[in-house]
Amino acid sequence: MNRGIVAELEPIFYPRGVAIVGASNREGNFGRFFLEGFLQMEFEKLYVVHPREQEVLGVKAYPTVKDIPAEVDLAVVVSPQDTVPGVVGECAEKGVKGVVIFTAGFGEQGDQGRRLEREILNIAHRGHTRIIGPNCQGIYCPASRVTHFSGLSRESGTVAMISHSGSLSAILPMAAIAQGIRFSKVVSSGNECDLNAVDFLEYFGQDPETKMIIAYLEGVKDGRRFCQLARSISKEKPIIVWKGGTTERGARAAASHTGALSGSNRVWKAVLAQTGIISAQSAEELLDYLQAFYYLPIPKGKRVAIVSGPGGPAVATSDACIEAGLELAELSQGTRRRIAEIIPPVGTSTDNPVDLGMGSGFAPQWYTDSIKAVGEDEGVDLLLIIGGSWLPNFGDMVVEAVKEVNKPAALVSMGLMLMVPTKGIAIYPDGRRAAMALGKLVEHARFKASD
Amino acid sequence: MNRGIVAELEPIFYPRGVAIVGASNREGNFGRFFLEGFLQMEFEKLYVVHPREQEVLGVKAYPTVKDIPAEVDLAVVVSPQDTVPGVVGECAEKGVKGVVIFTAGFGEQGDQGRRLEREILNIAHRGHTRIIGPNCQGIYCPASRVTHFSGLSRESGTVAMISHSGSLSAILPMAAIAQGIRFSKVVSSGNECDLNAVDFLEYFGQDPETKMIIAYLEGVKDGRRFCQLARSISKEKPIIVWKGGTTERGARAAASHTGALSGSNRVWKAVLAQTGIISAQSAEELLDYLQAFYYLPIPKGKRVAIVSGPGGPAVATSDACIEAGLELAELSQGTRRRIAEIIPPVGTSTDNPVDLGMGSGFAPQWYTDSIKAVGEDEGVDLLLIIGGSWLPNFGDMVVEAVKEVNKPAALVSMGLMLMVPTKGIAIYPDGRRAAMALGKLVEHARFKASD
Repeated sequence: MNRGIVAELEPIFYPRGVAIVGASNREGNFGRFFLEGFLQMEFEKLYVVHPREQEVLGVKAYPTVKDIPAEVDLAVVVSPQDTVPGVVGECAEKGVKGVVIFTAGFGEQGDQGRRLEREILNIAHRGHTRIIGPNCQGIYCPASRVTHFSGLSRESGTVAMISHSGSLSAILPMAAIAQGIRFSKVVSSGNECDLNAVDFLEYFGQDPETKMIIAYLEGVKDGRRFCQLARSISKEKPIIVWKGGTTERGARAAASHTGALSGSNRVWKAVLAQTGIISAQSAEELLDYLQAFYYLPIPKGKRVAIVSGPGGPAVATSDACIEAGLELAELSQGTRRRIAEIIPPVGTSTDNPVDLGMGSGFAPQWYTDSIKAVGEDEGVDLLLIIGGSWLPNFGDMVVEAVKEVNKPAALVSMGLMLMVPTKGIAIYPDGRRAAMALGKLVEHARFKASD
Repeated sequence: MNRGIVAELEPIFYPRGVAIVGASNREGNFGRFFLEGFLQMEFEKLYVVHPREQEVLGVKAYPTVKDIPAEVDLAVVVSPQDTVPGVVGECAEKGVKGVVIFTAGFGEQGDQGRRLEREILNIAHRGHTRIIGPNCQGIYCPASRVTHFSGLSRESGTVAMISHSGSLSAILPMAAIAQGIRFSKVVSSGNECDLNAVDFLEYFGQDPETKMIIAYLEGVKDGRRFCQLARSISKEKPIIVWKGGTTERGARAAASHTGALSGSNRVWKAVLAQTGIISAQSAEELLDYLQAFYYLPIPKGKRVAIVSGPGGPAVATSDACIEAGLELAELSQGTRRRIAEIIPPVGTSTDNPVDLGMGSGFAPQWYTDSIKAVGEDEGVDLLLIIGGSWLPNFGDMVVEAVKEVNKPAALVSMGLMLMVPTKGIAIYPDGRRAAMALGKLVEHARFKASD
């Protein structure tokens, strides 16, 4: 079934026409919500299917999918559960390539729901129609103007996402977009009665637009194929996974959420060790690691140099770096002499962590000159910069200095500066989070270099 | 020396007059920086000591401390290292109760610096003068208008802080103040040649203004006394400690930062187990836990109920709760029936984690009614609420519902809502952080209940 995964999924992500089945003029109708998203994206070949409506939000409505006088490659179905088999049958007859079933109340509710899923699948396969869902949010692909939520960016990027949670398939991209990150494709795959996370992983692995993959997963249906694919894709494209259902109670919640079998935490840990997948333990960690992979080059080694104004955070972040698997670089005598010429001799340190002292708050060039000094030290692979000057051009100066150095750099704003990440520099509010993110870059570099 | 710690420290935190020694009109002078802070606080009995200045920022300058024609209980010294022994001698003769030595270049730089510290201490003790520092930022006490940084609040509160980092003694309070938290007293104690963290812990333990204590510590000089005090104070006032120098490289950095001997991580873990101290591993964790202790009541048990709109975060946060030492409450049949009447039967769950489904984004009363339902369940000790409605009055509605329930509650905003914490409800951007903070409340409750 998955031999030609790209050929099968490409028309679904780049459809010639989209039908929203069940959209109505009623306030709070979920079809309207999808329709609003597509209209914001200025997707043009858009059709509504509804038994009674003539038009919804200015989009013409047809009684059935088969009545639409144009090609439809993607249908998004929000109509009631009992209408879904009929709708899928019409889609199959019409030659629709993919049907997103938003409607819930299937496998996640027990045996009867699972039987209904099998029935739908049989109907779909009569017409070579693939199913995404049910109980899912569907897909976002800014290059084709397909969306599954209002308020996402129309700009395309290099990150793909697979999600077993509809809400996270919107919340996480929105948070990342606010950091300047852009997505190639996002899919919320729900109960996965047909297409599943492994299919999308395979597709994103081959997708030239996609350079890295993030995922929120509850259970994985075909563990062996998942591991094989993840292991080979990870060598080229970092895969960052946040796994839900790693405890018994979490797994019980996952079963009623998407009907997923989460598997044991022990098995998941073995998967991580084998595949090179970067593991995140929360939404925040996932976004932190994504930021590092999106904006920073892959480091050549694990030796980090810390450059800090405040002394306490420099000490504690040294601890955090060690715990994150980094090593504190031993700066060369030449580098230390260079730094000694930049900063005063008292209340400072030229040893790593380099402590610029209190005066650095008024002297942004102490930061930038020290960044260049440690950055040009051959014994340094990564930079971690803490704090900064209150002067308004500090951010631009640091970005410029880091660019000259061309090594992965993270800046810890201590919650006091408002800076956005940009190529070459990731921004974190806390030293420990910066250390952990840099640690994940090193972990990935090591996996890439392994056999 | 510490028999009457309150009697000794009270005049230093509530001084009749303050001298800033070394403040000048030169741009970037640190004495000016202190002076600006005191002027912002509208501290009135303020004097400058400088050999040449007549007046700094409108404050009259005297050639020496002894020339000030009024009582001075606190002196803040920023003058060069070689002038410090002389200044301390004058303070001792004048009867100054406490001298904050901001000037660095003492014990943190090696043996010669340590000798100088002993010399200063001998001079100070001739006049019953106590030393804070050197290499420190000094004290903040809004009730007396004493400050050590510009931009802190003039409102007094219930949190005391002890810091081995001058910058953190300002950065952390500033971040907490932005969350509505207010401080009783803050001290940055630097190299601690005289008064040390244990002295301040004892004082804050007895201080009626102080209801909880946070600390950033690198090394503790009198470990046995620290443990005894911490253990007894923790029973009444939660103590949250972020420890720097827990790794070899962190300890090396701490030694050059404040000359501290950090001790091994193994010893520190034993201290935590023995004393009931709440351990934070980063600035962010410290602030997260502080928020919980500041705004929430102490829970009666460890059974948490999760109420969530988004399903994925509910699953993953269930895992995080288990990992944080909480237990997912088994909701009573009555509670589940109540919830079933609030939310639709499909795409939702009345089991804990309660999944309100996608529709809850448009229906804030699903949240508030469910909060009341689980909150009134006798099997529930804590509430963790995830996501919310986009409607603007959602925040107020949730605060109201939580108030009725009167159990500790945390709300996870998923980074999408801007809400500030308030009595009864703490706010976190991430489910895992909320779970960990609630876990610390439970840990403290258990310690309080132990013998």
